[in-house]
Amino acid sequence: MAISQRIVADISRSSWIRKMFEEGAKRKAMYGADKVFDFSLGNPNLEPPAKFHEEIRKLVDDPAPGRHGYMPNAGYPETRQAVAEHVNSYTKAHLNGEDVIMTAGAGGGLNVILKTLLDPGDEVIIPKPYFVEYDFYIDNHQGKPVQVPVGEDFSLDLEAIAAAIGERTKAVLINYPNNPTGRVCSLQELNGLALLLSEHSSRLGRSIYLISDEPYRKIVFDDLEVPSVLDAYRDSLVVTSFSKDLSLPGERIGYIAVNPGITDKELISAGLVLANRILGFVNAPALMQRAIPNLLNQTVDVDAYRRKRDILCEGLAACGYRFVVPKGTFYLFPRTPIDDDVAFVRVLREENILVVPGSGFGGPGHMRIAFCVDDRVVENALPGFERAIKKV
Amino acid sequence: MAISQRIVADISRSSWIRKMFEEGAKRKAMYGADKVFDFSLGNPNLEPPAKFHEEIRKLVDDPAPGRHGYMPNAGYPETRQAVAEHVNSYTKAHLNGEDVIMTAGAGGGLNVILKTLLDPGDEVIIPKPYFVEYDFYIDNHQGKPVQVPVGEDFSLDLEAIAAAIGERTKAVLINYPNNPTGRVCSLQELNGLALLLSEHSSRLGRSIYLISDEPYRKIVFDDLEVPSVLDAYRDSLVVTSFSKDLSLPGERIGYIAVNPGITDKELISAGLVLANRILGFVNAPALMQRAIPNLLNQTVDVDAYRRKRDILCEGLAACGYRFVVPKGTFYLFPRTPIDDDVAFVRVLREENILVVPGSGFGGPGHMRIAFCVDDRVVENALPGFERAIKKV
Repeated sequence: MAISQRIVADISRSSWIRKMFEEGAKRKAMYGADKVFDFSLGNPNLEPPAKFHEEIRKLVDDPAPGRHGYMPNAGYPETRQAVAEHVNSYTKAHLNGEDVIMTAGAGGGLNVILKTLLDPGDEVIIPKPYFVEYDFYIDNHQGKPVQVPVGEDFSLDLEAIAAAIGERTKAVLINYPNNPTGRVCSLQELNGLALLLSEHSSRLGRSIYLISDEPYRKIVFDDLEVPSVLDAYRDSLVVTSFSKDLSLPGERIGYIAVNPGITDKELISAGLVLANRILGFVNAPALMQRAIPNLLNQTVDVDAYRRKRDILCEGLAACGYRFVVPKGTFYLFPRTPIDDDVAFVRVLREENILVVPGSGFGGPGHMRIAFCVDDRVVENALPGFERAIKKV
Repeated sequence: MAISQRIVADISRSSWIRKMFEEGAKRKAMYGADKVFDFSLGNPNLEPPAKFHEEIRKLVDDPAPGRHGYMPNAGYPETRQAVAEHVNSYTKAHLNGEDVIMTAGAGGGLNVILKTLLDPGDEVIIPKPYFVEYDFYIDNHQGKPVQVPVGEDFSLDLEAIAAAIGERTKAVLINYPNNPTGRVCSLQELNGLALLLSEHSSRLGRSIYLISDEPYRKIVFDDLEVPSVLDAYRDSLVVTSFSKDLSLPGERIGYIAVNPGITDKELISAGLVLANRILGFVNAPALMQRAIPNLLNQTVDVDAYRRKRDILCEGLAACGYRFVVPKGTFYLFPRTPIDDDVAFVRVLREENILVVPGSGFGGPGHMRIAFCVDDRVVENALPGFERAIKKV
């Protein structure tokens, strides 16, 4: 074999997802795209706010030179400063511009953080179910993901986390509002986790870092407050993007916010900036960085997602599906009526309904329904969901 | 130490560059930016072509939905197809859209290629001097850079390359037009290299890949033709960006073109697409991808760089500097009048002239002058260059 054995293994590991998408594409070609109910992808169906287009137009007409050239690897100072102030507005943290690093989305930012923190063999604890790309991200930097269970309602299991902490534990990685469950962590849970990590950090004589991946922070319903790790735990880093709240996933723009009180702060900041450069990101896309300062208070119409959630939850509950109602994101993670989630996903596929088996997120016996689709898709899929549950 | 030991080492390894920039910034603050002649950065000073702005404007006004959402990880099919046809126009290759993967610049693309090809401990041969970020890129994927010397005129030393090929050689990485020397490889040299690699691949019973990093392909002077590895060697990959020819380095847009005849083609393509995804790039920025098809025949005013080269070369030759006249790029790589290039760079700094020591590129006894600056900066720096050479 002439190419990397690791990537060959990765290809085969992720081939079932590809097969699923190919199957979906085949069905769309066969029955027409409008006859297939595709809930498989977390690609927001809402358009970016009108102000996004205004900003880009303004920036393109700006005759100032060098607007598309290199800037410092961490991003434009003005953008970093604006983001810092924005973070300060929803936390009690006092970030400066230097505590912010602009990144190519949250996926880019996570790789930058992991490259900065991990030595080969270091472990990262992740409550499951979770976004499985994390496994790849950790493996890129020769770390080891350590999965821990959560409660029935997807709440953090602090005992399980405590039991998983060992000599090689470098960080805990959480993601609220959560993909795939839609759960939002409570302040109490977060404080409990922080206390636990503080105790173990003291015991180990070094910091266990808490990484919070939060691209769905603003996609929450019912006026819910999302607590911040920056308020709960000193050795914390936030990584996020504008992919969901501004519907810009294709543009790859996000940021890392470092807790100003973090241990080894200067070294970590220097490491993050260097990692952003040497991983080949170099910097977050320039034009998007310029647009962000005037878009920080914009979001897509979150109530539209709330409406989809309500239609979906009501419809599925009516025909007997069991689930925890999501407080945020555009995902629902119901139990599958039979234990074999992959088999049930096949049953749904016969109804031209495409969802992802929970096994793909470390949550077997469940399925992920991404409801970032037209209301009609949700409504029209309900009879198929009902037929499927009756079949098994 | 709580953070990665590797990144700590990397920080200290690259700290001399940071110090140099800090020194430069200090001088600019002290003497005024216009009194400091900064030739240290490869950040193009020419603006993108007017058509770039037109395209972006058109795209922002396009009301079609989903323009900023996810697309396939390899990029938009239309963009890949347009790029394939463009590559076919300057090579004899017959690429299809599937042979092209859109990337976050060439730096992103190189990481994607190296992730796809390298097993831990695999070696990548690089003729030096070279763009030292390559060392980091190779190390990211646990490979090992193996530097080989070039001739006095920076021509490839095939014997040195042959001697460096061993059991762990996975690839040879070349970069023409070259940063830092400005050299363009001849067709004859390239064919010689191809023959050599074919022989050694046969001997080893597996392919040695040839990776060509060519963001400066269109920045060439005197109607020079730049030969393509796609025409010379089957197991080749091109990686490039629009950073220099469209002056868009901050936007992170480029591509990988895979030789359609490459060994293990399907596996390599799948690996590249997966690597683009799991390294956290996910996809090249959407808006820029949309703009590219109508910009493939655009370039900045290359003759402006030619003019700067001529002013610089004439001026430096007149006061006794020795160098190979660059055929492309916006770099000149003269010998330093004393062997200690770091010391001579300090002498130039006293004249408020900022350049990078050749040691930073694996080419001690030289210095890199990036002449992507205003003509006046070049002209006004010449007296300082003259005083410096007289001082040593």
